[in-house]
This record gives sequence, C-alpha cells and structure tokens, in this order.
Amino acid sequence: METSNLALETSRPFLTWQVILKWGKDHYRERNFNKDERIPTRPGLLYLVEKGAVRIVGETQESPLNKYNKNTVISNSENEKDEAFLGFMVGGEPFEIVVKAPYNIQAYSHVDNTSVIWLYWQDIDNWPHFKGEVFEAFRRQHQRKLLWLSVLGQKHTIDRLFGFLTLLIEEYGAPYNHGYRLPYPLTHAQIGSAIGSTRVTVTRLMGKLRQMGLISIEEDGLICLPNLSVNN
Amino acid sequence: METSNLALETSRPFLTWQVILKWGKDHYRERNFNKDERIPTRPGLLYLVEKGAVRIVGETQESPLNKYNKNTVISNSENEKDEAFLGFMVGGEPFEIVVKAPYNIQAYSHVDNTSVIWLYWQDIDNWPHFKGEVFEAFRRQHQRKLLWLSVLGQKHTIDRLFGFLTLLIEEYGAPYNHGYRLPYPLTHAQIGSAIGSTRVTVTRLMGKLRQMGLISIEEDGLICLPNLSVNN
Repeated sequence: METSNLALETSRPFLTWQVILKWGKDHYRERNFNKDERIPTRPGLLYLVEKGAVRIVGETQESPLNKYNKNTVISNSENEKDEAFLGFMVGGEPFEIVVKAPYNIQAYSHVDNTSVIWLYWQDIDNWPHFKGEVFEAFRRQHQRKLLWLSVLGQKHTIDRLFGFLTLLIEEYGAPYNHGYRLPYPLTHAQIGSAIGSTRVTVTRLMGKLRQMGLISIEEDGLICLPNLSVNN
Repeated sequence: METSNLALETSRPFLTWQVILKWGKDHYRERNFNKDERIPTRPGLLYLVEKGAVRIVGETQESPLNKYNKNTVISNSENEKDEAFLGFMVGGEPFEIVVKAPYNIQAYSHVDNTSVIWLYWQDIDNWPHFKGEVFEAFRRQHQRKLLWLSVLGQKHTIDRLFGFLTLLIEEYGAPYNHGYRLPYPLTHAQIGSAIGSTRVTVTRLMGKLRQMGLISIEEDGLICLPNLSVNN
C-alpha cells in the first residue's frame, strides 16, 4: 500500500478519513480493482482513492486531421491506443471526472488491489471540514497540472521527458538510496503518450538520460532520480 | 471588455460579484494593467479578473540538460524566451499562483485595460457562497487542463496545434460568422510555447490548417474556427 504523497498525508486529519472510509464501506460505495481495470466514473460523483494507485487517461477524439495524418509517415508499427497518460491519484487523493463528449477521460486501476470509494457531492456536506480538504487537494492538483503544462511546452522532447519524470517523482516518488523512485511501473508508451512522443523515442531518450546519470532504472524497471531532493 | 466565458457568466450571481468588486475598490485591492505588464502575485492571495484578460505563463527551470541541448541543432535564431503559455483568465474568473521555486509561474495582462482585484483567502470567508463559486471555477479549470494535457499527449504537432486551438476557442471564443473566434491575439511563438513546438513550425502548420479550411485568420490576425459548434 503506497501512500507516498506526504503533503496530503500530513494535511489530512486521520480521523475524518477513517469515518469516511467506514461510511463508504457501510454504504457499499467501495470497490476493489485489479491492475489496468477500468474504474467506472460518472459526472457528479466524487471518488477517493483508499489504497493503490489510479491512472487518469485522456482519449483524444477522432481528429478531423485523420485524413492528413494517414498521408504522413508514422512510425507506429505497434498497436498503441491513442490515450494520453494524465497522471496518478494515490491513496488519500480525491478525483472526479466531469468532462463531456467529444472528450473522454477515464480512470484505470494502475496497480493490483487498488481500492476506491465514491460519494455524491451532497454526501460530503455532512463533513464540511473534509469538503474543504477535497477542494484544497483539487487546488493542489490544479497547480501541479500547470507545472506539467509548462514542462510540455518545451521544444525538445528530452526536456519534456526529463521535466515530466521530475514532476512525477517529486509528487509520487518514495525515497530510495540517495534519490527518489517512482513506486509504480510506467511503460515507455505511457510516458510517450504524456509528452507527445512515441515509445521508440522515449526508449532512446531514456537511454540518453541514463548515460548522463540523470535517471537510473532499478532491477524491477522502476524509474529513479538519483539527484532529486524534494523539499515540500 | 470581453467576458465571453458564458458558463461562468451564468453561474455567477451578479450581486455578490458587484459587492466583491466594490469591496476590492474600497480596500485599494484593485489595479489596472496595460498589455503584457506583469501582474505581481503572491501565494496565499486570490485574484479575480474584473475585466480584460490575464495570460498565465510558466517559465521552465534551468535544465540540467542544457549542456546537452547546446550540442544539438536548434532552429532558434529568434530570441524566444523559454516561457510556456498556460492559458487565459478572463473577466469573472478567479486565479491563484502558489508554486514555489524552482518552478515559476507568472501572470501577465494580455490586453490593455485589464483589471484585477485581489483578496486574502480569509477575506472570502465572509462570502461563503462566493467561496463555493471560486472552488467551482477551480474545479472547472482543472478539468479543462486535463483536456489540454490530453491534447498535448498527441504525437503529431499538427494534432496538438489543432486540438489546442479548439480547446482555447471553445472556452474563450466569441461567436463570429458561422463559427467562433478567439477574441485575443496570440502569436505563433506563444502558441508554439504551449504545444512544445517552435514559432516556425506553428506558422507552417497554421498555413496547412487554413488550406484545409479548419481555421481561418481574420483581418486583425484573430484565429477563427469556422466549423466549431459550442454546446455548453
């Protein structure tokens, strides 16, 4: 059970959280998911990650440029779905998905034994303090997404890649040796889908970052930033 | 005075807004800015755009990859600052900037006669309903940023470009002929900074989108989506 998000850990009063978890269980609003299972979501509902990790993914709509794209050379031999990785939600974090067609955002369980409870927004009116915390968490998530957008504005893919990994490990990393390590696996295709690049390019540039000593890959394939110092 | 953000317009009770504007003026918490002036911001303060438009910009930190980048061929003859365009805030929208070093997010007045008022978070405890609206606006902004991230995950620059313009005009566009038009100018360098591309590439791809009839450029340089139908 990874709940490495220390900022949240410390800001969330343990008791309210226990009360809400119990409430979720008592009201059959809790469900457990295996790795890569889709978590059904509905607008108007608020979700809380009890344990594990949730992956948020955006599916890009059918583009009017498709005709154009088919005429360009695409090194897309593998069967990559057109899904963009948009981030993790880990134990203790709230999330909601309210976007409408033609956009499509989905939540998946990123690791086995991920557990989620859900509430109607009006349910949490009973816990005004907790509601305040949910909004605080959303403020924080929003600010992180602004940083993420800054990183993706960079012209060089390697800058986007390194900036993306840094943001992710800053936020979700667990201390490891002298640096920090992302406790969840992330495929090169998933990384590419986040930074507007391909699996092949990500693999090549990850090799470059390793050579430069900026990242290391542990035996289990987990990504580590040896030089990161996180000061929350 | 463009306040084309209809979703906000209708959800914001006019009276509270007037009270808060008056409060801001009475407490000398209002300031007017010319185009491209930097709006000084501090963490812990909440800003409200009274009129005009604010541009949010992310400055990417000094990258440890700089040494590497200097050895690559960069078509960067012009003097582009390494700032990423992160979005607009228009009349009626709240914003805040709380990120800390090494990250740097700034607000600029995007058009002349942009006016902003600011409050401490505790100030708005006097208006609980308004506070709720601020959080609603942040929820909405956060969801829009997820869509933006989805768009930037696409591999082809032209897809990112068209997706980005669509999102922006969906959100801030004003009806124009049979489509919608972004009421603010945006340079090709600014667009490039948002989608991880260069001014030169944006100029070339904008030409392509025009040829395909997917965008049009009005006499004043404003970008128009002739085929967009916005259904809020």
